[in-house]
Amino acid sequence: MSVTYPRGFRAAGVAAGLKPSGRPDLALLIGDEGTTAAGAFTTNAVAAAPVRLSQERLRDGGGRAVVVNSGQANAATGARGERDAIVTTEATARLLGLDPREVLQCSTGVIGEPLHVEQMLLGLSDAIDALAPDGGDAFASAILTTDTVPKCSRADAGPYRVGGAAKGVGMISPHLATMLAFVTTDAPVTSEELRSIMQTELVPRFNDLSVDGCTSTNDTVMVFASGAAGGEPVAHPSAAREELAAAIAAVGDDLVSQLIHDAEGGTHVVIVQVDGAADEAAARRLATAVADSPLVKTAAFGGDPNPGRIVQAVGSAGVELDPASLDVWVGETELVRGGTIAPSYFSGGDLRSAARAAMAAPEFTIRVRVGDGPGRSQTFGCDLSYEYVRINGEYTT
Amino acid sequence: MSVTYPRGFRAAGVAAGLKPSGRPDLALLIGDEGTTAAGAFTTNAVAAAPVRLSQERLRDGGGRAVVVNSGQANAATGARGERDAIVTTEATARLLGLDPREVLQCSTGVIGEPLHVEQMLLGLSDAIDALAPDGGDAFASAILTTDTVPKCSRADAGPYRVGGAAKGVGMISPHLATMLAFVTTDAPVTSEELRSIMQTELVPRFNDLSVDGCTSTNDTVMVFASGAAGGEPVAHPSAAREELAAAIAAVGDDLVSQLIHDAEGGTHVVIVQVDGAADEAAARRLATAVADSPLVKTAAFGGDPNPGRIVQAVGSAGVELDPASLDVWVGETELVRGGTIAPSYFSGGDLRSAARAAMAAPEFTIRVRVGDGPGRSQTFGCDLSYEYVRINGEYTT
Repeated sequence: MSVTYPRGFRAAGVAAGLKPSGRPDLALLIGDEGTTAAGAFTTNAVAAAPVRLSQERLRDGGGRAVVVNSGQANAATGARGERDAIVTTEATARLLGLDPREVLQCSTGVIGEPLHVEQMLLGLSDAIDALAPDGGDAFASAILTTDTVPKCSRADAGPYRVGGAAKGVGMISPHLATMLAFVTTDAPVTSEELRSIMQTELVPRFNDLSVDGCTSTNDTVMVFASGAAGGEPVAHPSAAREELAAAIAAVGDDLVSQLIHDAEGGTHVVIVQVDGAADEAAARRLATAVADSPLVKTAAFGGDPNPGRIVQAVGSAGVELDPASLDVWVGETELVRGGTIAPSYFSGGDLRSAARAAMAAPEFTIRVRVGDGPGRSQTFGCDLSYEYVRINGEYTT
Repeated sequence: MSVTYPRGFRAAGVAAGLKPSGRPDLALLIGDEGTTAAGAFTTNAVAAAPVRLSQERLRDGGGRAVVVNSGQANAATGARGERDAIVTTEATARLLGLDPREVLQCSTGVIGEPLHVEQMLLGLSDAIDALAPDGGDAFASAILTTDTVPKCSRADAGPYRVGGAAKGVGMISPHLATMLAFVTTDAPVTSEELRSIMQTELVPRFNDLSVDGCTSTNDTVMVFASGAAGGEPVAHPSAAREELAAAIAAVGDDLVSQLIHDAEGGTHVVIVQVDGAADEAAARRLATAVADSPLVKTAAFGGDPNPGRIVQAVGSAGVELDPASLDVWVGETELVRGGTIAPSYFSGGDLRSAARAAMAAPEFTIRVRVGDGPGRSQTFGCDLSYEYVRINGEYTT
């Protein structure tokens, strides 16, 4: 049910012909009157037209519905792209009987290709006809591009329900928001409070994700609260708020996990945990440096622990550190202590076999300790496979 | 003749059994008495033991000879690694009748594996026996690891000669120095002057190189001047200095070109040129962001211009820019103007064919203009192929 698990939402997903494959490519989500919304967006300097439009409308207090298309990203499309975003959201608003400011937009697909506006306008009527309180799964399918499976999630928070859907398997790197993710709740939440929950519970989770270190032009996380569960607005602080935040966080965790497990060409999920850094920012830089290193990623693909590459990646992160305080574990096996790789690792002993066994699992952890500081961070990465090269060497050709 | 093209040097390369393959793995270079030296080293926080030793000895004014081994990088080897570097350079000094401070060291190979000291000590006698004024090619072969060909260069500067050798095909990214590179000249140059020429003529060139965005623990550039050509020390400023600097720069360019053409798994050299940035640092960040993007690199492998990925990489570089001032060329074909990808690109016209034709060449250029600023930079990168994944998925296993 994804985004329509909470009450007070209707959704749809249809095939409008924006994708050459003919698969569903136009999705619509609308909340009941009074729905509040918050969004977090890519930090890419060449943000797509729909990103800028949605940012503006959210700033103006709008955001009851969102229209999402896959096929074209409507990024690097200049003035035409701006116009296309306005035309399609205004048409959506007109058909739904809303003020245009109420309609947000996300686009995902090929960068630079102009939005197929005509097909989108034709498809909009179908999408509106298909709007249904159980349309969440159709919505989740229509937002996909190279994803192999839809990503849906749900959680409960006492009287409130939380739902979510996401897409994205490549061009994903942690800088503010990543890919497209939509979270809904039927709790009554003011937009200020919703923004606050999004910033603390969702944004950090999606920032912990990196498929390939590439920050997209279209990344967006949106949260909607319909209030359909009834009752007073969720107060801050309150037990209800805590429970709701936890449920939203759980949906975020679940979507992040589904995204990284469907990473382009990924055969292993690599969780990089860093602790002991001076602060969280330093820990995050270190974790990202390891997770994004093509040498660590190919070693993960080959099932080879190769601790030297982990040490190299840590050292190149641009973070000041004392090499003598560096410890590294692959799974439960400590391969580096005090900056020195255990010499027995190279004589083919148990150490290497244990680390290799850990890496054979579909998901494994690289843990890095760099000292006694309070900074910790975690990044969800994946390996770099032949399949990643194939997918990205052939895309759009 | 590589490093022995200039007079006043002897070099050797032998197989000491440090590499399992049995290939040459121990190299030695020594200049005549009075030889001056300068070096630039990796910025990786976990610099290898030989890097720290060489830095220290150069600071103390030493550096007439360098002993290089391939097979083990002697990085992340702790106190044992420090000791191994001292023991092997002291043995080299003793056998050569030099003060230990005169002997620099470079190591390259597997990170973390302890140096095979015994084999190295045994091999040293062979290397010293083999020292010859025409030993440069043997030297250039013995420093290789996964390189497929040796990299040698030479140039003339009036009465002076300049020679060079380098190695390195992976874990290469521009942060101060990269890989191992050795440049020699028989010009009489003080060590201060040599350092100055190195900083202005060599370091920036090697910084323009990126195979995979990974800064190694062992990167080193060293320059030696034997003075064997005779005459007064090269004065600053003087026509002789300019000519010498130009010859050293030419050798640097030649080695950089040879390195990138032998990049691990590389099937195309991608030269990324950026201009119009606020300053050189911003231009360099932008050029590196494009050259290191796995999505641009796989597109280069697939022969697909994919301007959207270039735009995405530019936007994610963390450099402030006006999207409306962004122009991008692939080869001679302008694909992006004023931040907008030419719509005709997607309708399969001449634009796309022209860009694809440019990318079919073994070497092609991506040119990015981001405004009217004075900042320009150039990065030599390569594509990301199945072969890169194979090489790095299998290494050490």
